[in-house]
Amino acid sequence: MSKLKLNITMSIDGFVAGPSHSEQVPLGVGGMDLHAWLVELAVFRDTHGEGGGEVNASTPIAERFFENVGASIMGRNMFGGSGPWGDEPWKGFWGDEPPFHHPVFVLTRYAREPLELEGDTTFHFVTEGIEAALEQAKAAAGGKDVSLGGGADVVGQYLAAGLLDEMVISIVPLLLGDGARLFGGLGEARPKLEQVEAIEAPGVTHIKYARVK
Amino acid sequence: MSKLKLNITMSIDGFVAGPSHSEQVPLGVGGMDLHAWLVELAVFRDTHGEGGGEVNASTPIAERFFENVGASIMGRNMFGGSGPWGDEPWKGFWGDEPPFHHPVFVLTRYAREPLELEGDTTFHFVTEGIEAALEQAKAAAGGKDVSLGGGADVVGQYLAAGLLDEMVISIVPLLLGDGARLFGGLGEARPKLEQVEAIEAPGVTHIKYARVK
Repeated sequence: MSKLKLNITMSIDGFVAGPSHSEQVPLGVGGMDLHAWLVELAVFRDTHGEGGGEVNASTPIAERFFENVGASIMGRNMFGGSGPWGDEPWKGFWGDEPPFHHPVFVLTRYAREPLELEGDTTFHFVTEGIEAALEQAKAAAGGKDVSLGGGADVVGQYLAAGLLDEMVISIVPLLLGDGARLFGGLGEARPKLEQVEAIEAPGVTHIKYARVK
Repeated sequence: MSKLKLNITMSIDGFVAGPSHSEQVPLGVGGMDLHAWLVELAVFRDTHGEGGGEVNASTPIAERFFENVGASIMGRNMFGGSGPWGDEPWKGFWGDEPPFHHPVFVLTRYAREPLELEGDTTFHFVTEGIEAALEQAKAAAGGKDVSLGGGADVVGQYLAAGLLDEMVISIVPLLLGDGARLFGGLGEARPKLEQVEAIEAPGVTHIKYARVK
């Protein structure tokens, strides 16, 4: 059965982006450091057309990111920009050939026609909320899984609604002190999790959790 | 050289105690669940005079808690009670024979004579702040390490001051949603850490960090 799953990197103090995030600094102050473990991997550099890089215990984790994934969901902040789209809407942070290569459903309050880009990535803009986005993404995924991209607020909404089946949290030895807290938006919900596995890698620990039904 | 080190259990959403902590519920609502991995271990049951229990990948972690430790430091909340001591001061949460078996330095604003209990545990009450407590604890430890007991606010103070040398954070698959956030009190400080090792165990992942000098 198609699952909704999350891969996200979190500082040990709970943040997935630093403070003062903007179009120029999408991950906030210090936020790029979160992903140092990932961007140095050969498997990551390959997908960005660069050679070299490392092979280590994080490699299988990064390889699984897009394994059996047929569609993605992300929040508006993660696509880029805010407010109404305007007459010449921005294509977002992800460039002319985004790394997804599958349909991506963007949660927003502002309707917009689908945006088809190079490499089989089409952004669909969903205004009907998280359940509608999940339904559309699962239909588009054709039996494969759906990857939840973030940010923190969107993760909180799916988690609180009991719709997130699985997450791999990559915990890095960084104290950001401020920014977007991954689990800051649970409200009164207390979903139950179980630890599936933990993998030690250079400069990061990957812990996989599953929802307890 | 004598180190200041911390062993603490944290929910994946960053809490080391649940909300609404009181004398009756010292760990707050849901807080006891944090320590399920520990209390079921044979090594823990042994030290409390009980038989049985499990031996698993967490066993060496629990064994190391008091290895080479000559003194402890804790905040007033963790000793128990609040405000002035009164005429018949309470002996705290730890009973007539506390599990420390070494001098324990309690940070408080209220002076009090040392409290000597069974099993070589003496509580000393320090009113001069965290650096004085560390100095006194190191002197009492006689070359061994000093263990920082918590709570979260005290950990934040030592961490922000650059005085915490090492910590093992045991991360459990629990969403407490509210309570005492371990890294909520850093202020503007951004101490640098490195990951030393990570150990997967049943229902918990232990990650050891060291301060980068």
